[in-house]
Amino acid sequence: MPSLERRATIEGLGTAILLTAIVGSGIMAERLSGGSAAIELLANSIATGAVLLCLIGALGPISGAHLNPAVSIADALQGGLPWVEVPAYVAAQIAGAIAGVAAANMMFGLPLFFISHRARAGIPELFAEFVATFGLLFVIWGCVRFRSSIVPFAVASYIVGAYWFTSSTSFANPAVTIARTLSDTFSGIRPIDAPGFIVAELLGAVAATGLFAWLVPVSKRDAQAVLLPHQTSENAREV
Amino acid sequence: MPSLERRATIEGLGTAILLTAIVGSGIMAERLSGGSAAIELLANSIATGAVLLCLIGALGPISGAHLNPAVSIADALQGGLPWVEVPAYVAAQIAGAIAGVAAANMMFGLPLFFISHRARAGIPELFAEFVATFGLLFVIWGCVRFRSSIVPFAVASYIVGAYWFTSSTSFANPAVTIARTLSDTFSGIRPIDAPGFIVAELLGAVAATGLFAWLVPVSKRDAQAVLLPHQTSENAREV
Amino acid sequence: MPSLERRATIEGLGTAILLTAIVGSGIMAERLSGGSAAIELLANSIATGAVLLCLIGALGPISGAHLNPAVSIADALQGGLPWVEVPAYVAAQIAGAIAGVAAANMMFGLPLFFISHRARAGIPELFAEFVATFGLLFVIWGCVRFRSSIVPFAVASYIVGAYWFTSSTSFANPAVTIARTLSDTFSGIRPIDAPGFIVAELLGAVAATGLFAWLVPVSKRDAQAVLLPHQTSENAREV
Amino acid sequence: MPSLERRATIEGLGTAILLTAIVGSGIMAERLSGGSAAIELLANSIATGAVLLCLIGALGPISGAHLNPAVSIADALQGGLPWVEVPAYVAAQIAGAIAGVAAANMMFGLPLFFISHRARAGIPELFAEFVATFGLLFVIWGCVRFRSSIVPFAVASYIVGAYWFTSSTSFANPAVTIARTLSDTFSGIRPIDAPGFIVAELLGAVAATGLFAWLVPVSKRDAQAVLLPHQTSENAREV
Repeated sequence: MPSLERRATIEGLGTAILLTAIVGSGIMAERLSGGSAAIELLANSIATGAVLLCLIGALGPISGAHLNPAVSIADALQGGLPWVEVPAYVAAQIAGAIAGVAAANMMFGLPLFFISHRARAGIPELFAEFVATFGLLFVIWGCVRFRSSIVPFAVASYIVGAYWFTSSTSFANPAVTIARTLSDTFSGIRPIDAPGFIVAELLGAVAATGLFAWLVPVSKRDAQAVLLPHQTSENAREV
Repeated sequence: MPSLERRATIEGLGTAILLTAIVGSGIMAERLSGGSAAIELLANSIATGAVLLCLIGALGPISGAHLNPAVSIADALQGGLPWVEVPAYVAAQIAGAIAGVAAANMMFGLPLFFISHRARAGIPELFAEFVATFGLLFVIWGCVRFRSSIVPFAVASYIVGAYWFTSSTSFANPAVTIARTLSDTFSGIRPIDAPGFIVAELLGAVAATGLFAWLVPVSKRDAQAVLLPHQTSENAREV
Repeated sequence: MPSLERRATIEGLGTAILLTAIVGSGIMAERLSGGSAAIELLANSIATGAVLLCLIGALGPISGAHLNPAVSIADALQGGLPWVEVPAYVAAQIAGAIAGVAAANMMFGLPLFFISHRARAGIPELFAEFVATFGLLFVIWGCVRFRSSIVPFAVASYIVGAYWFTSSTSFANPAVTIARTLSDTFSGIRPIDAPGFIVAELLGAVAATGLFAWLVPVSKRDAQAVLLPHQTSENAREV
Repeated sequence: MPSLERRATIEGLGTAILLTAIVGSGIMAERLSGGSAAIELLANSIATGAVLLCLIGALGPISGAHLNPAVSIADALQGGLPWVEVPAYVAAQIAGAIAGVAAANMMFGLPLFFISHRARAGIPELFAEFVATFGLLFVIWGCVRFRSSIVPFAVASYIVGAYWFTSSTSFANPAVTIARTLSDTFSGIRPIDAPGFIVAELLGAVAATGLFAWLVPVSKRDAQAVLLPHQTSENAREV
């Protein structure tokens, strides 16, 4: 297994590319769509899912490709990622996410950072973030227990769906939520709305993790072997 | 294999997420599309397929990820799921489906339940439901006989296609049909039209199961091993 | 291996579902699109690709899932499908394709058959059909030589792309060409234009097969083992 | 391994089909979209990704399916492709790309070649090309180290995303850049803008290759085994 420094660097770079994709595709879609919000979300959801697929496929066997503090914390709850490594993972994810937004803004000739004014608030949207992250972790735990090689496809397709089926468009990721306050474009969120989203996301992740562990118990030894990094059986043969 | 209680709970939760996706993405699409029905169905079909992929990938090795009474009954017909377990599966699927509609309605600030007024009737639409469910089971039986690891991809892509190629937009699932009477939005169906759909779906499932069994005979022992849960060769190595 | 009768029946049923998908999704797209030809082709291409993925995934290990006389003939040229079985395959594909068009027309309340008036002619479109079928066989031969389990994904995605990059929208299949004369809807073709398409398709298939065989020679023994049915390594373990 | 001549021919043919797809789908989208730029890019990105998936799936085990001088050079930097073979690969890719544009133009009844007038310039777009190619190589290196069978899916989905998240629409390929000067249609680029794009692409590829090699060191022996041709574990069993 690579050192923590290298794994955290991979997490940071991966999350940066993810945010470049989320924010950049939102800007592009907004510019090209002529005002059709459905086409904007279609492009944004397809681009986000596509980039998640390739990032998790490429980086999963190295760092786990969590790219998401909610996933790292849930993984630690199950004895996968050691708690002592969680701060490095989360810090790298947040720093990477912020850098990714800057890259997207720069590519489209916008200021490196400019605060979003897009309101995303209210009980329905907070409930939506809870559902979105609950579903994400539910899917991840199902896949890693029995069929970890499908994780890149499953997580990517989950997010494509969740962009559409949640009223919040499924941030489902605290690092993403923080970073998306920094671009006043299609995918932005007002800073004042971010804390509520983050709390809802963490609650959803913890609820799904607890429920799944109760439904399909897993030994700590299994958890460590399966979860970090997400070794697929193919990798096990190759490495 | 997990206990029946746990497998049925997984079926219920999975079907709930599926209905949240079907109904929620329909609402989102309707709100954003500016009236373009083609964009609405495009978003609805992509979101449904994406969520099916991740649910079957995650839950298939645990409960079979039928998420559909027609599939559970067809599986029982072939000696897979024991008949004594069918009621628990079907009840969990229907209850989960109804809960999923409530979650979708709640996320979008709508009443938990409100009866659909969308007419879906007539011989062509009933024939379409027959074809849709026939095709679904035909694909499932083909995959599980020889290449069960492709089931999540095959079923998801089948439904994406069938939303478009059937005049009924391919409910193909009695639990889904019942639940979709409870949201007067894009994906709804009038309660009065539901029984006809359900009969057509069950006939299609039985016809495909019988035809496939005649074309490619399968021993009962094979059926039990292959069908419940849908063990992939990868799983067989990992578990 | 199933008997020729059963394999031909599978080919017929698979091609019927394929044509139901092509023609049905074209009708649905036409009805919902409000006249946007790009949305129509987007829906038609996604639905066709999705259904190809699940059909080849489900039926490939049984009959080869050629669903296309050009593929069966190319396979026979390389010593895969015995020449004596080609007529049964081709006849089943054509009959199935015609039945599939009838099913699509019926589901949408149209006459079972009604001749298309859509002109698809001229040297550029004929050249496009040559290119489309050349590319299809080129992709198939590449996949089956080394990585046959990717065939369902590769062929489906090829066709999604080819609908867009060829001026003929890539019929690439003589059975499909014949059947599409029988629905005067989005995906139709005038009967008078069909023979030219079929000749161009067969030339493209033969050219790709010959070129690929020269580039990457394959023994007859390999051809028979690899090509019919398209056994994946997973199947080889399971069956 | 096939001879260099045959592998280079495969690279040339593959790049030709890729360019036919990029340019052809752009022309088709432009003709059908009624002026909606978002629909055009959606069709263009989906068609390009779809064709990449099938080409890499089919040709990866034969020639590596680089289809891109930046990939061939990065591969050589890591000891994969021998430097002495790089000129043949790059020449075949460029020649194939140009032939592919001619085929696309011909299929749509346009002149074989006609110079693009579409301006793509400025620091943001050059930075975007750097990011696009950096991300592409970052994904490739991650995949080939541990999970090479996912490369066709990962590269295809990366490009679908990158078309949307980069302001340049992610050429990310010097051969593609040269060839796209030769069609004055949706996907074109002015010849005067091509050199800047190519420099940015090569810098991005080298940066990602160096960074990844520092993060996850790989022995030269591993590089040669893994990289050329991209042998998957499935292939290793089958061949």
